[in-house]
Amino acid sequence: MKIRTSTAKGTFDIIPVDMELREWMKNTVIKVYKQSGFQQIETPSIENLELLTKSEGGENLNLLFKILKRGEKLNLQQENITEDDLCDLGLRYDLTLPLSRFYTNNREALPNPFKSIQIGWVWRAEKPQKGRFRQFTQCDIDIMGEASDIAEIDLITTTAKALQALSFRSFTVKINDRRLLKFLITAIGFDENQVETICITLDKMDKIGQNGVEKELIEKDYDEAKSKELLKALTELKTLNKDSFIKYNIDEEVLTSLKRVMDVVTRQSNGEYNIEFDVTLIRGMGYYTGQIFEIVSNEFGSSIAGGGRYDKMIGRFQKEDVPAVGFSIGFERIFSILMEKGFTIPDPTTKVALLFNSDEDINPVFDWADSLRKEDKIVSIYPKAKKFGKQINNLQKQGFNYYGIMDGGEVRDLVSLLEE
Amino acid sequence: MKIRTSTAKGTFDIIPVDMELREWMKNTVIKVYKQSGFQQIETPSIENLELLTKSEGGENLNLLFKILKRGEKLNLQQENITEDDLCDLGLRYDLTLPLSRFYTNNREALPNPFKSIQIGWVWRAEKPQKGRFRQFTQCDIDIMGEASDIAEIDLITTTAKALQALSFRSFTVKINDRRLLKFLITAIGFDENQVETICITLDKMDKIGQNGVEKELIEKDYDEAKSKELLKALTELKTLNKDSFIKYNIDEEVLTSLKRVMDVVTRQSNGEYNIEFDVTLIRGMGYYTGQIFEIVSNEFGSSIAGGGRYDKMIGRFQKEDVPAVGFSIGFERIFSILMEKGFTIPDPTTKVALLFNSDEDINPVFDWADSLRKEDKIVSIYPKAKKFGKQINNLQKQGFNYYGIMDGGEVRDLVSLLEE
Repeated sequence: MKIRTSTAKGTFDIIPVDMELREWMKNTVIKVYKQSGFQQIETPSIENLELLTKSEGGENLNLLFKILKRGEKLNLQQENITEDDLCDLGLRYDLTLPLSRFYTNNREALPNPFKSIQIGWVWRAEKPQKGRFRQFTQCDIDIMGEASDIAEIDLITTTAKALQALSFRSFTVKINDRRLLKFLITAIGFDENQVETICITLDKMDKIGQNGVEKELIEKDYDEAKSKELLKALTELKTLNKDSFIKYNIDEEVLTSLKRVMDVVTRQSNGEYNIEFDVTLIRGMGYYTGQIFEIVSNEFGSSIAGGGRYDKMIGRFQKEDVPAVGFSIGFERIFSILMEKGFTIPDPTTKVALLFNSDEDINPVFDWADSLRKEDKIVSIYPKAKKFGKQINNLQKQGFNYYGIMDGGEVRDLVSLLEE
Repeated sequence: MKIRTSTAKGTFDIIPVDMELREWMKNTVIKVYKQSGFQQIETPSIENLELLTKSEGGENLNLLFKILKRGEKLNLQQENITEDDLCDLGLRYDLTLPLSRFYTNNREALPNPFKSIQIGWVWRAEKPQKGRFRQFTQCDIDIMGEASDIAEIDLITTTAKALQALSFRSFTVKINDRRLLKFLITAIGFDENQVETICITLDKMDKIGQNGVEKELIEKDYDEAKSKELLKALTELKTLNKDSFIKYNIDEEVLTSLKRVMDVVTRQSNGEYNIEFDVTLIRGMGYYTGQIFEIVSNEFGSSIAGGGRYDKMIGRFQKEDVPAVGFSIGFERIFSILMEKGFTIPDPTTKVALLFNSDEDINPVFDWADSLRKEDKIVSIYPKAKKFGKQINNLQKQGFNYYGIMDGGEVRDLVSLLEE
């Protein structure tokens, strides 16, 4: 019986035409990030299971791929065996938790502040569906060790430049602050420990609307009057109005910093994109502690980047907290948008196929290839096929621009394969 | 208690200075490979366990990282539970087996012949030791669908160019043919099914010498006279001598093809590297069926690339066999050689740090940064520190070439940080 050749469920092979676009995307964003002083790093795909489970991974912990212990460490004879008995490692489900471990582990070798670039695979055992994979690429920049909002401005303007370099023209940066929501929810009279679950419901505003949110809050047994007041407050806070901020007991520094970030980003955008305050922006991750942001493509109506400040994560690995902010572009989402719109990579290299007769000396064709490669052409050498017409057709399909035939050691002119 | 911040055993973090060299290596070899008409692809890191175990992975199968089943599929209550009951996926241990699966799975979308580039992580649960990791990078080129030795010549000359681009000057390509060993071993009178185990012992020639190999063969209960004859034959076959080939019943096509490949490679090397026939070259993998090759750095005395023909692997996934040849450079070995010799990346980009006073408008410093980035400089923006002297020292250590200070919205000249 032959072995199945499909990829593991929810994973995908990358054929050359897809790989070319993905590599162009990677190289393009890395160039932008590096120009802004970010430095690329990488962490292992596998981490100690303890690291992955003792973290605020939330929903992601249910999606962990766990790795079986090996050799003597694996004991299958135990009674009441648990997953923890069996496994010692797991595949990373994001790049933020590994970065925090990395930062603590390598602090001596890193500058302060440290501006990192990470592009790599992450794994989540999700139910596969359109656009959702079990192995997918994340693409993050982070600044560790910078408490001031210069970090937010740096991340937002750099990410916007990366998206522009990826050919995105019309997009909006949405910004909010986790502290604002916390001040607001407690000012209205909810308990501090209710903030997170309330935020989970507020996060559904896009999908179920204001009425839906109100209904869900009441169903979840939150006080009806307070729930209504919360929704009213959210309406009042649609703009950055100082009076509303004072009314709901929101720290002035939150307002000042939001204004400063918005002012500088607006000025730096040169009118090419927008930044908007959005009090209903929540973002799922439990670890955010300050400003949070998201970029929405106006053209494609979907979120293409997201991030925020997480000042309390590194403190789980070492004595002191270290301020940290990150911004992640939706690599797979952007890839599928570019594919769908038939995006073509700028300035492709000229591709030449050189054909030779198998019974002749092949040195001349190798020499010819090398001289063309010196002109920065891509040159591939093939034996001339018996069915020559079919071979030429295939070369054309593969995107070759020219072919040449080596005949009796004589170089002939290159023949164009461009469709007329 | 704080969470451990070390990487999982046998894996490593990549800090910026290492990452820069690794990325330069990757980009350098990809450029060479692409110029010769190879196309990059990628396969998932995780594969169905069945694929990984039902293969000629040999020793690698004992080194598999297996992934625990999830949800309802995982039943811990069974009696006499086995690893196969518990696991459905594994991490790939090389790039050759996944490539063969990929080729069969995507054949319709691929040209024929197909010249692939793969650079990616593989995982093996080996006992960690100096230079041996549990997660490491492999870097392969392969040609599928080309039966003639133009494929071998293409792979050897392209790999040699990649090594030259990586700054390697003095190296030797060693070449042999698996069929030669098979003809020879059976001509002497051993059984065909003994060929593989005998080859495993012959492979130790480098380490234990001719006497050691003879001793081991006899200890393994092989006929003493035949063992001695085999070693004598290997001495006679040190050069490509036609009479010896006839004496040991070696097919003439093996000799002709070895000679052709060596002739063309010698001519194409322009005297910059050597190719030598080495009858004692074995290479471990059981799947090789024809010519095998290895590149040894004369300067560093170690193997830096290896490969060979494996015409019978794809036949395990589909009806027909497809000819295939691959060549892999030792990415991690080359990385450590370059690090040890203090290699510096050619033409590094100029790095500029721009400092600003936190109480001033920061738009001018962002504008200044952008104008310098247009000159292809790397520009990073930082608040001016109170301990200015220390900050400047740190920037110098981090490899910044210049710094500039934004003062009252006025641009000052850049100051060189190069050590005098």
